Amino acid sequence: MDVNSSESTTKRPLILVSNDDGITSLGIRTLVELMQTLGEVVVVAPNSPQSGMGHAITIGEPLRLYSTEIFDEVDEYECSGTPADCVKLAKCYVLKDRAPDLVVSGINHGSNSSISVLYSGTMSAAIEAAVEGIPAIGFSLCDYRLEADFSHVGEYVLAITRAALQNGIPKGVALNVNIPSIDNGPIKGIKVCRQAHAKWQEKFDYRKDPYGRGYFWMAGEFVNYDHDKEDTDEWALKQGYVSVVPCKYDLTSYEVLDNISSWGL
Amino acid sequence: MDVNSSESTTKRPLILVSNDDGITSLGIRTLVELMQTLGEVVVVAPNSPQSGMGHAITIGEPLRLYSTEIFDEVDEYECSGTPADCVKLAKCYVLKDRAPDLVVSGINHGSNSSISVLYSGTMSAAIEAAVEGIPAIGFSLCDYRLEADFSHVGEYVLAITRAALQNGIPKGVALNVNIPSIDNGPIKGIKVCRQAHAKWQEKFDYRKDPYGRGYFWMAGEFVNYDHDKEDTDEWALKQGYVSVVPCKYDLTSYEVLDNISSWGL
Repeated sequence: MDVNSSESTTKRPLILVSNDDGITSLGIRTLVELMQTLGEVVVVAPNSPQSGMGHAITIGEPLRLYSTEIFDEVDEYECSGTPADCVKLAKCYVLKDRAPDLVVSGINHGSNSSISVLYSGTMSAAIEAAVEGIPAIGFSLCDYRLEADFSHVGEYVLAITRAALQNGIPKGVALNVNIPSIDNGPIKGIKVCRQAHAKWQEKFDYRKDPYGRGYFWMAGEFVNYDHDKEDTDEWALKQGYVSVVPCKYDLTSYEVLDNISSWGL
Repeated sequence: MDVNSSESTTKRPLILVSNDDGITSLGIRTLVELMQTLGEVVVVAPNSPQSGMGHAITIGEPLRLYSTEIFDEVDEYECSGTPADCVKLAKCYVLKDRAPDLVVSGINHGSNSSISVLYSGTMSAAIEAAVEGIPAIGFSLCDYRLEADFSHVGEYVLAITRAALQNGIPKGVALNVNIPSIDNGPIKGIKVCRQAHAKWQEKFDYRKDPYGRGYFWMAGEFVNYDHDKEDTDEWALKQGYVSVVPCKYDLTSYEVLDNISSWGL
């Protein structure tokens, strides 16, 4: 199998870290500290929260990039753009000719399982790296709080990252890793699974501003159509397992090509 | 096959139109006029250009929605959010209990073929509709100009839309339709194809602002690794065909599940 492998690298791997909650978030601090035990770390991350940015990139507007001093012994930058912008700018400008051995994104404050992968800025950084042919993993903790408890994640983040560096991630794929909140009990292990068939059922809260004009807040409920399917990320997380879903950026639905072709267009 | 079909609908289909170039663009005007020949049209589109927004949604900020009077005999609204927001708000608030028979997005000023589908606001509106179980098509013209020539697109947009309404689009799929510029010669026909393996090779243009601070403009070249592959959208477009790629929102790379499972995590 054609893999993005760094097995032949004898020196410490070069690891690019990004996220979507912004460079000052607790999640990226946790991830940087963990990655420092494995390799040389460079951080390029948004200067503001970018949750829900999907795979947005900045077209038609300038990008800013400034060095920061948030972490210990890390080459680090904050960027005015999206997570995908951060990976592009890191590759082309910050790292120039040094290709990272791995891109990791997160640790997101909140789940990016099942359909949320579409809206996820965390995963867009990982998928952007995969497009560039770089092994990549997005990590998310199922705890939305700013002060989320990351105390239990290290073992799983390191195990998955080490395995990815050793085995290589197949080309065209980025891993979507979600970790249950420790509030729901001890973690049972790691499951490789598929994206559950689910969606957000939105409910918009309509209000009036102080000037009498209407506005909406998006809210919603998560609906899992695959609630009884044991091969899905939602099932794994609910049972207390870390979920690992390999995600690809070739969106072609090969299964229906014949069906559409039969329309006789 | 499980399909989103409206074949049983005897009344004129209800068609929701959105885009990412904004409600005043020439492309959406063209699409609205074409759809009015097929059914009842409702427009909910961004009030500003949203190119490159990917599958971004607005979290943590309010959304505005105002009715407009741009089109003739159309129920129409401009929204402060992203294309995906527009579809969510249309479904939950504008249309309430009336499920559209079809969602069409575009016509985008510029190609959304191959890897550009990831960054495309046009396609995010279509894919958001597919997540909701609504048949959906994103249309793009390979001409980035504001005053792009849409004179040749009608025949193809109508043929594909009629076929989709008649046959039903398989569940979980949205069609990504790209139409060559007429500047490159007459259109040869329509090809159903897969997403080409390609990427944008970015080059960032570094400049100084009037205050001496650096900033970057993202630019890039398109690199097609599948340039000789006749089953791809890029090949079809280059040969003068309209390309139709069925896109799915289940990103799971089923092909590599066994490989990742073999890591023994």
